[in-house]
Amino acid sequence: MQLKIKNVSSEYYRYNLNFRNFFMTPESLYENREIVYFDKRVTFKEFFRETRALCSGLAGIGVKQGDVVGVIDWDTLTYMKLYYAIPMIGAVMHTVNIRYPQELIYLTMAHAGDKYVVVRDEFVPVLEKYASMFDFVKGWIVYSDSGSPVSSTLSPLYQLSDLEKGGECEPPDLDENTWATVFYTSGTTGLPKGVTFKQRDLVLHTLALLSVMKNEPLSLTSDDVFMSLVPMFHVHSWGMPYVAVANGNKYVLPGRYDFGKILELIERERVTFSTMVPSILYMLLTHPKAQEHAGALKGLKVIVGGAALPKGLAMMARGFGMTVVGGYGLSETCPVLTISVLNDYTKKLSPEEQLDYLISTGLPIPMVQLKIVGPDGKEVARDGKGVGEIVVRTPWLTEGYYKDPEKTKELWANGWLHTGDLATVDSYGYVHIVDREKDAVKSGGEFIPTLVLENLISEVNGVAEVAVVGRPDPKWGERPVAFVVKKGEVTEEAIIKHLEGYISAGRIQKWWIPDQVIFIDSMPRTSTNKIDKKELRARLQAS
Amino acid sequence: MQLKIKNVSSEYYRYNLNFRNFFMTPESLYENREIVYFDKRVTFKEFFRETRALCSGLAGIGVKQGDVVGVIDWDTLTYMKLYYAIPMIGAVMHTVNIRYPQELIYLTMAHAGDKYVVVRDEFVPVLEKYASMFDFVKGWIVYSDSGSPVSSTLSPLYQLSDLEKGGECEPPDLDENTWATVFYTSGTTGLPKGVTFKQRDLVLHTLALLSVMKNEPLSLTSDDVFMSLVPMFHVHSWGMPYVAVANGNKYVLPGRYDFGKILELIERERVTFSTMVPSILYMLLTHPKAQEHAGALKGLKVIVGGAALPKGLAMMARGFGMTVVGGYGLSETCPVLTISVLNDYTKKLSPEEQLDYLISTGLPIPMVQLKIVGPDGKEVARDGKGVGEIVVRTPWLTEGYYKDPEKTKELWANGWLHTGDLATVDSYGYVHIVDREKDAVKSGGEFIPTLVLENLISEVNGVAEVAVVGRPDPKWGERPVAFVVKKGEVTEEAIIKHLEGYISAGRIQKWWIPDQVIFIDSMPRTSTNKIDKKELRARLQAS
Repeated sequence: MQLKIKNVSSEYYRYNLNFRNFFMTPESLYENREIVYFDKRVTFKEFFRETRALCSGLAGIGVKQGDVVGVIDWDTLTYMKLYYAIPMIGAVMHTVNIRYPQELIYLTMAHAGDKYVVVRDEFVPVLEKYASMFDFVKGWIVYSDSGSPVSSTLSPLYQLSDLEKGGECEPPDLDENTWATVFYTSGTTGLPKGVTFKQRDLVLHTLALLSVMKNEPLSLTSDDVFMSLVPMFHVHSWGMPYVAVANGNKYVLPGRYDFGKILELIERERVTFSTMVPSILYMLLTHPKAQEHAGALKGLKVIVGGAALPKGLAMMARGFGMTVVGGYGLSETCPVLTISVLNDYTKKLSPEEQLDYLISTGLPIPMVQLKIVGPDGKEVARDGKGVGEIVVRTPWLTEGYYKDPEKTKELWANGWLHTGDLATVDSYGYVHIVDREKDAVKSGGEFIPTLVLENLISEVNGVAEVAVVGRPDPKWGERPVAFVVKKGEVTEEAIIKHLEGYISAGRIQKWWIPDQVIFIDSMPRTSTNKIDKKELRARLQAS
Repeated sequence: MQLKIKNVSSEYYRYNLNFRNFFMTPESLYENREIVYFDKRVTFKEFFRETRALCSGLAGIGVKQGDVVGVIDWDTLTYMKLYYAIPMIGAVMHTVNIRYPQELIYLTMAHAGDKYVVVRDEFVPVLEKYASMFDFVKGWIVYSDSGSPVSSTLSPLYQLSDLEKGGECEPPDLDENTWATVFYTSGTTGLPKGVTFKQRDLVLHTLALLSVMKNEPLSLTSDDVFMSLVPMFHVHSWGMPYVAVANGNKYVLPGRYDFGKILELIERERVTFSTMVPSILYMLLTHPKAQEHAGALKGLKVIVGGAALPKGLAMMARGFGMTVVGGYGLSETCPVLTISVLNDYTKKLSPEEQLDYLISTGLPIPMVQLKIVGPDGKEVARDGKGVGEIVVRTPWLTEGYYKDPEKTKELWANGWLHTGDLATVDSYGYVHIVDREKDAVKSGGEFIPTLVLENLISEVNGVAEVAVVGRPDPKWGERPVAFVVKKGEVTEEAIIKHLEGYISAGRIQKWWIPDQVIFIDSMPRTSTNKIDKKELRARLQAS
């Protein structure tokens, strides 16, 4: 006699993990919370009413389920509405990377097949110039902050302000596996690759973040005020536009990044929670107005990801009274996989000892299965020494690269998503990325973990930024070279001497020490503001 | 040009929200956390190893996916392992209500079709007596705390200790909609009804709790130590055996409830977090040893549910320095729907003002869509006055009553789960249950909310417990009568006078005041320890 539920009522409601359902609860619970965009502020109640009006307007001009809708904008209130409105009607939001060169912007839009495109006024002229090439676009939706019509030769042309004028739509109750977003990730080689995410992916990613972000030392409460400094075209701004709303947090939108204005906003809106890459944190803290707003920076909690968080930078942030914590993920992973919160081991350490863990890659967040697989195919030991590739499984990973079966196959080899990141794991369970697989310097058949070297070099007085890359070497295959941007007086000798001090402590090997330190004025960067190591390697090869 | 992901790799891993996947992450993150059962303590690492050995043993004697496995036990370490092991192999755990009379225990086991039954030694004799009736049972699995074999005439007989001896199984990666649990809920009329839950239900319920329990004033951290005082046969012990493990909290099992021992355990294991019904809280606080352990009770955080939390009891708990918070749910809802955490309105109130919200039914937890529908079919106003029935949608509700299409149809009428509870909602969003629909007193065509009266009466000095029920009345249909258990000197006049004081404040209507106060020695209780109002009404009818 087995249990067979034969009598399920036809009226049983199967709750889909979609946007409509998931955000219905916070809309009702936190209706008076605010979303702030410079001088404009709307309550959650107004926000969702306007979002549903936009849903109605989009459907009215013909946007259908499965249609790709491109968005070309800074971090604005309009973008925030589109983050909800486009998926709510079952369409697919393409967050166009506006930092790409024009050609790549075009190629990615053509590749995704953007059927409709929402464009902020200042981006209209460049699109007009190449309008004839966008034969796949069936509607251009333009807007300006003022709300007044934007004149343009783009055609067919719609004013977003008209689309927002109608009544509210009743969002359909979609299958949770409906596609929600697509965007492109710039590899260090080849054209950008498209990754896609489903509504269920984003809901579960939000739930996992909601839980882990309430852990120490982030200790998120509903009183926190968010301002993500990860552009909204970049991997869902790490999920913050969804997490904040789900938890009832006030959300502040910075528009186009201007660090002076951002510092003012942090002060005016009492921002307490942010996310950013290390270079943005650095620019914020070294901004001429930083000291003037030091009081507002005190207590700010920041998740730093996108690249390793250098210890020197973390200490600078601590000097401001900020709490900085490392996080890790990829475009392919929605993005978050790990966050460096404290656990029962590291809680007991002194603040100084904790820092090494807080700036690490961190601990897997709920529902993340993370393995570090060594060259022998086995998981490495939890000894902080064995190096292997991070492979993961979670319920929010991309199914693959859009229209690229070959790279998809590599990504998902053996049913695990391959991150291409090399890491160790310590006895407390913290993951430490030591290198991108393709950035690793392989010398005499062994990996030299460049992130470990960069971290130690960043501690030297006068070092602003550092990147270690491999120079081809006839004898060893490759040898490490350090590129350094100064912020004061520092010499090659001082850096080498500092590193040598760690040899006896067992932190580094003697043969890891770079053959040369090259001082440069500024680091070359990718469109997502990461240090462009490919460019640095090219410079070495050219010289 | 629409987005169609045609190139999904066959190796893409579709993560199912099942037990195997969900608990893999905490097992790896918190391997040294402990589960404590009197003098036995196992780490999470040992716990999962033993659980997988048990999986292997169960599969070895023939337990297959879909088989119902009954469990007859107190809150033990063995039960905790079965909470995981049975679903992990795809079987269905039937948490047999051992507080039922023997006949009901048999009837529910027969109705569920328990194919295998795990029995703690002390329950073996009574089962042996009726062994011939259990023709549907294909295997009895017996155990004792000591681990030594239990002799019995039950047949076929297996020793659980033998089942645990083998190697670990590799749990299958099941579809998330695999049935996980079944148990019976005693209505106030008719036979108990069976409700069932899927692995996905339990995973999403756990995730929602993980997020909301970290909100103030519960402020769950990984340092908290759990001991749920909701029996494990009762609605998944409100999900705590899963929440604690998912969050890496030490978990203490109380065995068979003995309040003296429980107080000792709270002190010895430094328990900081519990869940219980009001009557258990009352028994704990009024226990002769409560004062001796007052130091350990200080700071204890408790979610009280299963029945309204009387203000008098909440104040008594505050006197001990405890934090008590109301929660609400049904057997049909997994169970949690609401918890009375603080929100941005109530955070600003004084502790005295907060109490009225903390003891309320509370706020919907993540993913709960909750409506209060008045007699006119419309949602009631957020004014704390309009009374309607609570109906809900969440991703963890039972699909229906097992083998009972008629009652299932009522439960799920119009695609919403009907709780049968009458409530109001205030301007801060807090739900306040005013009555069970069937417990409401209807006088002169209007509802008299008995919970409001009970709450006010509980404030009178000398009142230990109170229940208000309706007595048939030729003129008004029904009139309220209060049953009171004393804990000191108190008179009918004092109670009536206390209530009259609230008329002018608008808290109650004059005609709500009970016609009579009847003092009794103790309250009649249902098998789940709730006050049995059906029995009280029967007494009124008999007199």
